[in-house]
Amino acid sequence: MTVGIVGLGLIGGSLAKCFAQHGHRVLACDRDAETMAAALRDGAAQGELTPARFGGCELILVCLWPQKTVDYIEENRAAFPKGGLVVDCCGVKGEICRQVWPIAREEGFTFVGGHPMAGRELSGYRASQADLFHRASMILTPGPGCDEAVIEKLRALFLSLHFRQVVLSTPEEHDRIIALTSQLCHIVSNCFVKSPTAGDFGGFSAGSFKDLTRVAKLNEAMWTDLFSQNRAALLAELDIFIDNLARYRAALAQGDDSALEGLLREGRKIKEGLTLGNHTSQNRESL
Amino acid sequence: MTVGIVGLGLIGGSLAKCFAQHGHRVLACDRDAETMAAALRDGAAQGELTPARFGGCELILVCLWPQKTVDYIEENRAAFPKGGLVVDCCGVKGEICRQVWPIAREEGFTFVGGHPMAGRELSGYRASQADLFHRASMILTPGPGCDEAVIEKLRALFLSLHFRQVVLSTPEEHDRIIALTSQLCHIVSNCFVKSPTAGDFGGFSAGSFKDLTRVAKLNEAMWTDLFSQNRAALLAELDIFIDNLARYRAALAQGDDSALEGLLREGRKIKEGLTLGNHTSQNRESL
Repeated sequence: MTVGIVGLGLIGGSLAKCFAQHGHRVLACDRDAETMAAALRDGAAQGELTPARFGGCELILVCLWPQKTVDYIEENRAAFPKGGLVVDCCGVKGEICRQVWPIAREEGFTFVGGHPMAGRELSGYRASQADLFHRASMILTPGPGCDEAVIEKLRALFLSLHFRQVVLSTPEEHDRIIALTSQLCHIVSNCFVKSPTAGDFGGFSAGSFKDLTRVAKLNEAMWTDLFSQNRAALLAELDIFIDNLARYRAALAQGDDSALEGLLREGRKIKEGLTLGNHTSQNRESL
Repeated sequence: MTVGIVGLGLIGGSLAKCFAQHGHRVLACDRDAETMAAALRDGAAQGELTPARFGGCELILVCLWPQKTVDYIEENRAAFPKGGLVVDCCGVKGEICRQVWPIAREEGFTFVGGHPMAGRELSGYRASQADLFHRASMILTPGPGCDEAVIEKLRALFLSLHFRQVVLSTPEEHDRIIALTSQLCHIVSNCFVKSPTAGDFGGFSAGSFKDLTRVAKLNEAMWTDLFSQNRAALLAELDIFIDNLARYRAALAQGDDSALEGLLREGRKIKEGLTLGNHTSQNRESL
């Protein structure tokens, strides 16, 4: 198929390389001319995407930051083909879908929220990789009344690109879960390195410090954008975490080893439950 | 050499297998008869260690939990050979060294605190591996006035077993740093899974949730023992972390994106500094 890709950062660049490698024709655009030239040179894109060419694309993937995604679709709303299919790739879905679904309805194209669940501690086209999404989860948040055939087409497409699974969700469910599984992870990791002791870690660490602080290296502007678009859910998770942490602190401060051991046991058992795979939400369909 | 190993759990069992694989003669003991039999059958031990045989060991490694380590050495204090060498393998060093150094001085053997920096989310002899410490850091906390030749002998020995490095520290420095790099990691990880949202993570996670919660699965009795022996340092790190986290929470709650981005930038830069290796403590010697 011919796929249009807007934005050739880590996500858009990786998707372009992946689609091209699987024999699809990629038309892409990026505000940075050098990145665009590199993508054409690499064969990640076969041509430049302009709004005039939207009509020739079976699928348009918008791979910009959250606010820019909405802005781009708003600015180019009239150029999307009637009956066309547009998917974004932002890490938040509520704000995006609330703003873009009405535009899509008015202009007569289909918009499905998307979130390919993979990343790297590097950003930009140069960090992009054709296999970034190998075995990754692709989350889709279709709008109310979205045609089943559209979902089925996207499902088959992403599986053909070697995603592990396509998960259907609502924007609200997505944002509620992602607040913990991605956003709070980044805050905790970023916060963890702020102890003055962190500078002494060399030679004093097995894997736990490294794993816990892996995502501390983040693009702060992009993540601020993501956090601000999911403020309520993230704040709720942060408060749950802070409340729970206070229990450990109290047990430790009071020298109550039995309470501390109980808290640790509880966490260990929850973790074992997750590891064993007891984590399938009832109200979600994994295709 | 002939090495005595007390306790064949994950750490002692892995050390026994490692020493044996490198051609050393291992005498070992474990309170569990089946474990002892398995170690003899596996060739991890060539014979059973009894206090009567301590004299034939060039080195005795005590691989028990913190309190049991002190108890074992106290109970068998008279059996350690004059001029002999004993190293423990606990994850805390202050309490151990404070209690064992006087015993060693009185009985005329040398006690060096030790902490081989590796682990698994499994415990016990069955989880032990000959290569568990491959490329790991071995921390040693020798007592005041410890013979240089003893340190040099231990250094050469652990490097010959393919440890990456031998790091010298004081018990206080070790415990201060480990409070962050190991202990707080385990508390944060264990606490993180307690959100009710954790059960929904399947399909909604790239690597960050998995990495952050890896060590949530811990042996709660052993870690309570470790935490309780390092209460002050761990509490200090926990409070630093909680204070820092409150800053992120305030910025998020107030909708102050500029402050939030500033906090994230600060963390990202610290993490980059760590990654670049700007973490060599001045008062520590890496041999």
